[in-house]
Amino acid sequence: MKADELKLVIFGAGLIGGSFSLALKNAGAVRETVGFGRSENTLIEAKKLGILDRIGDNIALEMQDADLVLLAIPVGQMTEIMAQIAPHLSKNALVTDGGSTKGDVVRIARSKLGNRIAQFVPAHPIAGGEKSGPAAAQAGLFEGKKVVLTPLPENSIEAVARIRKIWELCGAKVSEMSPEEHDEVFAAVSHLPHLLSFALVHDIANRENRDLLLSHAASGFRDFTRIAASSPEMWRDICISNREALLVELDRYMKELETLQAALSGNDSEKLEEIFSEARKIRSNWEPK
Amino acid sequence: MKADELKLVIFGAGLIGGSFSLALKNAGAVRETVGFGRSENTLIEAKKLGILDRIGDNIALEMQDADLVLLAIPVGQMTEIMAQIAPHLSKNALVTDGGSTKGDVVRIARSKLGNRIAQFVPAHPIAGGEKSGPAAAQAGLFEGKKVVLTPLPENSIEAVARIRKIWELCGAKVSEMSPEEHDEVFAAVSHLPHLLSFALVHDIANRENRDLLLSHAASGFRDFTRIAASSPEMWRDICISNREALLVELDRYMKELETLQAALSGNDSEKLEEIFSEARKIRSNWEPK
Repeated sequence: MKADELKLVIFGAGLIGGSFSLALKNAGAVRETVGFGRSENTLIEAKKLGILDRIGDNIALEMQDADLVLLAIPVGQMTEIMAQIAPHLSKNALVTDGGSTKGDVVRIARSKLGNRIAQFVPAHPIAGGEKSGPAAAQAGLFEGKKVVLTPLPENSIEAVARIRKIWELCGAKVSEMSPEEHDEVFAAVSHLPHLLSFALVHDIANRENRDLLLSHAASGFRDFTRIAASSPEMWRDICISNREALLVELDRYMKELETLQAALSGNDSEKLEEIFSEARKIRSNWEPK
Repeated sequence: MKADELKLVIFGAGLIGGSFSLALKNAGAVRETVGFGRSENTLIEAKKLGILDRIGDNIALEMQDADLVLLAIPVGQMTEIMAQIAPHLSKNALVTDGGSTKGDVVRIARSKLGNRIAQFVPAHPIAGGEKSGPAAAQAGLFEGKKVVLTPLPENSIEAVARIRKIWELCGAKVSEMSPEEHDEVFAAVSHLPHLLSFALVHDIANRENRDLLLSHAASGFRDFTRIAASSPEMWRDICISNREALLVELDRYMKELETLQAALSGNDSEKLEEIFSEARKIRSNWEPK
């Protein structure tokens, strides 16, 4: 890829979109970034921070010579934006996204992108955190982080390779799986733990002795519930978007709790130790990569 | 309390017992620490580390002039040790412990300490961590940490005040509640989260695609499951010791999950957002004290 070759158009100039633009500018891969978004203030801030060269005015116009389009917007806005870009998207442009769920985005894309579907290579960057907005964006956000591509049967090998290269230029470690497998994996290791953590804090939130309970909670509780301070709107959307896979995981987990409940009720200390030991063996040999 | 006044006898010279001795020596409150324990090697190591001045040989003898006795042993050993110390305990001696559950220890004490019960002031130091054994002991372990006393109706005001003072000399912030309330509070904020964390990792441990799942788990999963690397034996004992209160908490939590399951099944994004928002509001305004 030649340096300063690409015109990038981003929808959403927050943490993910902003960091994507900064990383690709840093890598010398982008000659111009144009941004669209629902909040004028966010776009103005992103321009001041060097994330955007221009604030977009006319989607149809900007699509005509765009090389790369990033959709870094909530799933709820995907239908509208995809419908707007589809008729005007340059034949050479590629589109990727930054959403945490993939099945739903792919369904929307199939419905709205029409014969442009082959130009869309879905992606899920495993990065983020508690902060959001353009001020939180940084060129190094994706450095060493995983990005999962979920290519479509319609994508050419070349299109997938180009999008892989783009994310690698951002510093990411790129892997691939199907959208369905992606959603199953993240239901298990991300969406369910968030749901469980919210549930524990919510269960305590409405008790009369809440303050007494919280005043005796220590580091175990702190770590277990850290993710219960995440954005309620974002996690509502993720849970609804991936509800089928999440319901499967939740059902499995509730059966696991029934097993523990039976062991406790029956004073079955051997069973408890067996479950705890198997968990500990796995957990103590694991660290995030 | 005069400096170097006390003869301390500890049962269990590991993290809790060792740190207790070091802290009180540091505070100038102990003239001699004598240790008993099941492992001769542990006692020898504790003596080398300055935790013990002597390794005890005869419990009956050492009890005769002991001023302070700490039981820093698993609940499973309490019955035997209490039965051994009761007949020989000096009238002026006070006994405290370091156990994570209190109802069961109090039941054993009532059965085994007999007319010495007034001399036992139960305690739960909220300190510890992943390390154990005498090498992990440190004089500052209890510094700024909470210690919950669960006084008995039989305890004199003076006895409770003396044990409070002892734990304060270790640097702890001391509070009081009944043994029953203690066990309910810790079932909710400590024992249940440990159970839930073990359950999540165990649920993943036996899957065919376990490695794929773990390779995509990130910081949320890491923090949620940190406590699943805790000692299986210790948590088996805590769960069994506090099974009644823990079963009440587990039942509440399973009902909370049923509410979430119904919201997900019914695509009820408002309900999900309401639950997540209430949790987030509590969690983001809380840090362990």
